[in-house]
Amino acid sequence: GEIFDKEMYQDNSTAGVVTGLAWTSVGGEILFVETSLSKGKGKLTLSGQLGEVMKESAMTALSYLKSKADKLGIDDRLFDYYDLHIHVPAGAVPKDGPSAGITMLTAMASIFTQRKVKSKVAMTGEITLRGKVMPVGGIKEKILAAKRAGIKEIILCKNNKRDIDEIDKEYIKGVDFHFVDKVEEVLEIALMKSKVDDPMIFSFPKESENSRQIA
Amino acid sequence: GEIFDKEMYQDNSTAGVVTGLAWTSVGGEILFVETSLSKGKGKLTLSGQLGEVMKESAMTALSYLKSKADKLGIDDRLFDYYDLHIHVPAGAVPKDGPSAGITMLTAMASIFTQRKVKSKVAMTGEITLRGKVMPVGGIKEKILAAKRAGIKEIILCKNNKRDIDEIDKEYIKGVDFHFVDKVEEVLEIALMKSKVDDPMIFSFPKESENSRQIA
Amino acid sequence: GEIFDKEMYQDNSTAGVVTGLAWTSVGGEILFVETSLSKGKGKLTLSGQLGEVMKESAMTALSYLKSKADKLGIDDRLFDYYDLHIHVPAGAVPKDGPSAGITMLTAMASIFTQRKVKSKVAMTGEITLRGKVMPVGGIKEKILAAKRAGIKEIILCKNNKRDIDEIDKEYIKGVDFHFVDKVEEVLEIALMKSKVDDPMIFSFPKESENSRQIA
Amino acid sequence: GEIFDKEMYQDNSTAGVVTGLAWTSVGGEILFVETSLSKGKGKLTLSGQLGEVMKESAMTALSYLKSKADKLGIDDRLFDYYDLHIHVPAGAVPKDGPSAGITMLTAMASIFTQRKVKSKVAMTGEITLRGKVMPVGGIKEKILAAKRAGIKEIILCKNNKRDIDEIDKEYIKGVDFHFVDKVEEVLEIALMKSKVDDPMIFSFPKESENSRQIA
Amino acid sequence: GEIFDKEMYQDNSTAGVVTGLAWTSVGGEILFVETSLSKGKGKLTLSGQLGEVMKESAMTALSYLKSKADKLGIDDRLFDYYDLHIHVPAGAVPKDGPSAGITMLTAMASIFTQRKVKSKVAMTGEITLRGKVMPVGGIKEKILAAKRAGIKEIILCKNNKRDIDEIDKEYIKGVDFHFVDKVEEVLEIALMKSKVDDPMIFSFPKESENSRQIA
Amino acid sequence: GEIFDKEMYQDNSTAGVVTGLAWTSVGGEILFVETSLSKGKGKLTLSGQLGEVMKESAMTALSYLKSKADKLGIDDRLFDYYDLHIHVPAGAVPKDGPSAGITMLTAMASIFTQRKVKSKVAMTGEITLRGKVMPVGGIKEKILAAKRAGIKEIILCKNNKRDIDEIDKEYIKGVDFHFVDKVEEVLEIALMKSKVDDPMIFSFPKESENSRQIA
Ligand SMILES: [Ca+2]
Ligand SMILES: [Ca+2]
Ligand SMILES: [Ca+2]
Ligand SMILES: [Ca+2]
Ligand SMILES: [Ca+2]
Ligand SMILES: [Ca+2]
Ligand SMILES: [Ca+2]
Ligand SMILES: [Ca+2]
Ligand SMILES: [Ca+2]
Ligand SMILES: [Ca+2]
Ligand SMILES: [Ca+2]
Ligand SMILES: [Ca+2]
Repeated sequence: GEIFDKEMYQDNSTAGVVTGLAWTSVGGEILFVETSLSKGKGKLTLSGQLGEVMKESAMTALSYLKSKADKLGIDDRLFDYYDLHIHVPAGAVPKDGPSAGITMLTAMASIFTQRKVKSKVAMTGEITLRGKVMPVGGIKEKILAAKRAGIKEIILCKNNKRDIDEIDKEYIKGVDFHFVDKVEEVLEIALMKSKVDDPMIFSFPKESENSRQIA
Repeated sequence: GEIFDKEMYQDNSTAGVVTGLAWTSVGGEILFVETSLSKGKGKLTLSGQLGEVMKESAMTALSYLKSKADKLGIDDRLFDYYDLHIHVPAGAVPKDGPSAGITMLTAMASIFTQRKVKSKVAMTGEITLRGKVMPVGGIKEKILAAKRAGIKEIILCKNNKRDIDEIDKEYIKGVDFHFVDKVEEVLEIALMKSKVDDPMIFSFPKESENSRQIA
Repeated sequence: GEIFDKEMYQDNSTAGVVTGLAWTSVGGEILFVETSLSKGKGKLTLSGQLGEVMKESAMTALSYLKSKADKLGIDDRLFDYYDLHIHVPAGAVPKDGPSAGITMLTAMASIFTQRKVKSKVAMTGEITLRGKVMPVGGIKEKILAAKRAGIKEIILCKNNKRDIDEIDKEYIKGVDFHFVDKVEEVLEIALMKSKVDDPMIFSFPKESENSRQIA
Repeated sequence: GEIFDKEMYQDNSTAGVVTGLAWTSVGGEILFVETSLSKGKGKLTLSGQLGEVMKESAMTALSYLKSKADKLGIDDRLFDYYDLHIHVPAGAVPKDGPSAGITMLTAMASIFTQRKVKSKVAMTGEITLRGKVMPVGGIKEKILAAKRAGIKEIILCKNNKRDIDEIDKEYIKGVDFHFVDKVEEVLEIALMKSKVDDPMIFSFPKESENSRQIA
Repeated sequence: GEIFDKEMYQDNSTAGVVTGLAWTSVGGEILFVETSLSKGKGKLTLSGQLGEVMKESAMTALSYLKSKADKLGIDDRLFDYYDLHIHVPAGAVPKDGPSAGITMLTAMASIFTQRKVKSKVAMTGEITLRGKVMPVGGIKEKILAAKRAGIKEIILCKNNKRDIDEIDKEYIKGVDFHFVDKVEEVLEIALMKSKVDDPMIFSFPKESENSRQIA
Repeated sequence: GEIFDKEMYQDNSTAGVVTGLAWTSVGGEILFVETSLSKGKGKLTLSGQLGEVMKESAMTALSYLKSKADKLGIDDRLFDYYDLHIHVPAGAVPKDGPSAGITMLTAMASIFTQRKVKSKVAMTGEITLRGKVMPVGGIKEKILAAKRAGIKEIILCKNNKRDIDEIDKEYIKGVDFHFVDKVEEVLEIALMKSKVDDPMIFSFPKESENSRQIA
């Protein structure tokens, strides 16, 4: 009855990979949002049989990061001179809904900054364009799947606290919860200060330096 | 029975976020039109499962602002050198119809000018390309939802006054109504003279200055 | 039973807005074709839930104006350095058919020349690419709606004269009819020599001057 | 029972307009292929509710003219620096099939060369990319419609001669037939040596001269 | 019962036209793949109501020729500075399947090199991207149609030899068969060393010379 | 009952061709992923009636190679100045699913590096964007088909080892299995150090050298 191939939490040595939580007709599962950057022209590619709502979440997450690039320490030339690909395995399983919003946003923030993702963290929550985190469904099933997979910390919307409170305590022993309102809190918790080992070195066309000036 | 996650009015500290009113099969609700700007090439992105009519409203609002940029104090290089994203949470709820026209227009005007949106104001009304405000349906349900959410002022088309007159006075105590004909009146009421705290500083390519001359 | 919100004729102070006549399942109505220009790259945007035939009418009208720009006193750099938006309220009402052809063409001619549209004029008729005006249906219902709305002059194809002759004279007292063959006649009747108050001042890139020479 | 508005042959004073023959469920009719050129970038616009086969005919005709531009006396900069629009009234009547191929090709050749179209000529026939003329159906109905409309000369594929031979002679008295194999013959018959009165004067960017050299 | 208009083999005086073999519900027929080149930007246009598989064959054939341009004596600037159109008459007959692969490839090779196509040759076979020729169906019907049309030589995949062996010898008297494995063999057989009379003279932008250097 | 034309393993003299394994309703079969490069602008073309999931696999493989170009010895100017075509014969057979992921990735790596593909190797496995190899279905049928076709080595995901363990040993005598976790292992096994005979010599625009600098 499993839909995603039974995944365990994996190591956090790669930038741009973040663990999310999915809720399918057969229960909860963890999933991975994977991102990659390559030299290009700012194109966004989405794969993994993502539905329309999930694609819009990715676009919203990217717009948020673009509009807050300075505050988040992202070189905004990346948006012009690199292409971003977001993939969610398993490639043949259709996926949809807004609940991967914060996972996709965190994965993008990691690949753009090359900062490490905290170990054994998973998350689920919708984002809005101004950076609010909104509650999502299927919390109980998702939490149980996360625990099975070895996750130690879970990030959720504050409005999902009531769903956690209804779960029998012994099922969630050893898992810490972070209840958040805003995307900034998610990034603070999930992204480490240090860069990954062997981070990507970005390069840009010469003429792209200082090509804009304040009006 | 709720469709949007029960929202209360939120603070107006962010440019480009305006409160609208929706009318669904289960009653009225408030909704938020969120906008963001990021360096780009004038691309418009719409998300939040918006239907065709609502997308056309956004395009009409943007064309109105472009054609009146000078009068509204908008630097028209923004339309060429920044990308605009409009998102309407909740991301998985399909939305359609023309009644968010003035809300989208006001949100765009705020993000382009970085002017603050007046506190506790909500609005509903169709726009036309020449800046007329047209009446919309579901007024009674929308007004009650606005009051529940803590809204103090509501902007409506003059032709919707008859709908307000039919509502029992005690239900709308403490809410002020503005009945308008034109988009200019909406902006006058809803946008404050002052900019938001920590406004975006726009920058443009050097060559974009004075690149046009009068024929 | 009304489909368009009951409209009366409105003033002609704005360039690019022309009154047309629609024929729906519930009778005739007036409608407004609205246009706007903003700095851009020659893009054409159509909104108002226009069907395929109506969109093709708009494209045909635009091609006609482009190919006759010199004769009509239109600066052809407008087609390269401005974007044109055509909107037909009400935004949620689907509209189709070729009968708004001359209305759209006149609205475009007005916005491109900034010439005033004659007061209290309405029109209905298909156009062809070489500038012929062709007859359309629903004349009786359209005429009655125009009269109700305060219209004083109506422009029609010569081949629609027989439809007018069948209407009881007392219903159309006080309305003058212009029967035409060609688009030039429509523009002669409907556009005034004078520009609107406060006309748009167009500007163009420096390099666009004299950039073409005769072969 | 008529589908196209009853048309009579019209004068040939305009470049780019050629009379074709259509065969509908209610009999034969004449139709007009109209073309226009305006400064642009080589875009092709098709309107008049043309079906896929008819659109492909237009594209094939255009490719033929492009590949034979020198031989036909067409300045090939027109294909880069002008936009071509092809419209077939009536705008709301769906049309399809390959039989307007030679009509569209002749109309394009006329607008590109500004040569006059011979008076009172109509034509019907499929074209291929190498310039063959192929037979089409509905010949009898088309011929009768052409005669009713005042047409004096008709151009057809040689393989359609058998269809003409089956028509009672008295029905086609006063109509001359040209049976052809190749597009060159069509143009020889239908296009006059002289240009239209007041022909378009084409202009091109300075840099477009001599920009190619033989390899 | 015929679907294509009964065609006989035609002369080979034109570059870029090659005879193929089709198998329809009513038997075999010959068809012509026609190609044309005109100054442009490397665009590929396909017409003749071609289905998806047939369009992919054309794209595969073109990629093969591009990747082998040097070996085949094709100036690779043609791919950047000319547009290619491929048309398969009759224009209204839907066509699909991979069996025109070698025919399309040969037609393209002829137009790009301006080499003559051998007289009275027809062919049928799928191609792959690395230049293999693969077997196709309907061989018996196709061969009989080719003979009826006056074809003297037929090119087929080696794996189709068994289909030929099953045909009664007297039906195929006077027709020579070439059984091939690879596209190179097809071109060797079907393309003559000599150019067509009056070949196209290609020209290119000055700056396109030597614009690439080996890395 | 065969769907793909019965293929035997073919020689490995060509860069960019890799043998995969397909599982259809009628059993297992080998298939070939073919790639070609030609001068262009970085366009990706996919053919062979590939379904959406398979197209996404190709895009994911390409993004992986782009983001790891340096480590894999791929000149990243290839992604900008060459077009890549991926074709999977037979052209008329619809194909879908993620299991050709590692085959497509290996074929691309071979064409980009011009390295030879190891002789008599086949493979099946899904890839993810960070380079994981994931298990796929139909292993037993695929293995038997590979053996029939003369394959000597097969690359599979470690998680597919259990499927191999269930196959009767005598059926797989003479076939070596490689069980892998990561794409790097696949490339190490399947790509030889040596280039193909007569490798492509890549060339690039002069200005593309050193056009980027580290930020
Ligand atoms: Ca799983
Ligand atoms: Ca899908
Ligand atoms: Ca709610
Ligand atoms: Ca949708
Ligand atoms: Ca009305
Ligand atoms: Ca629609
Ligand atoms: Ca008619
Ligand atoms: Ca249509
Ligand atoms: Ca035939
Ligand atoms: Ca079709
Ligand atoms: Ca097979
Ligand atoms: Ca398909």
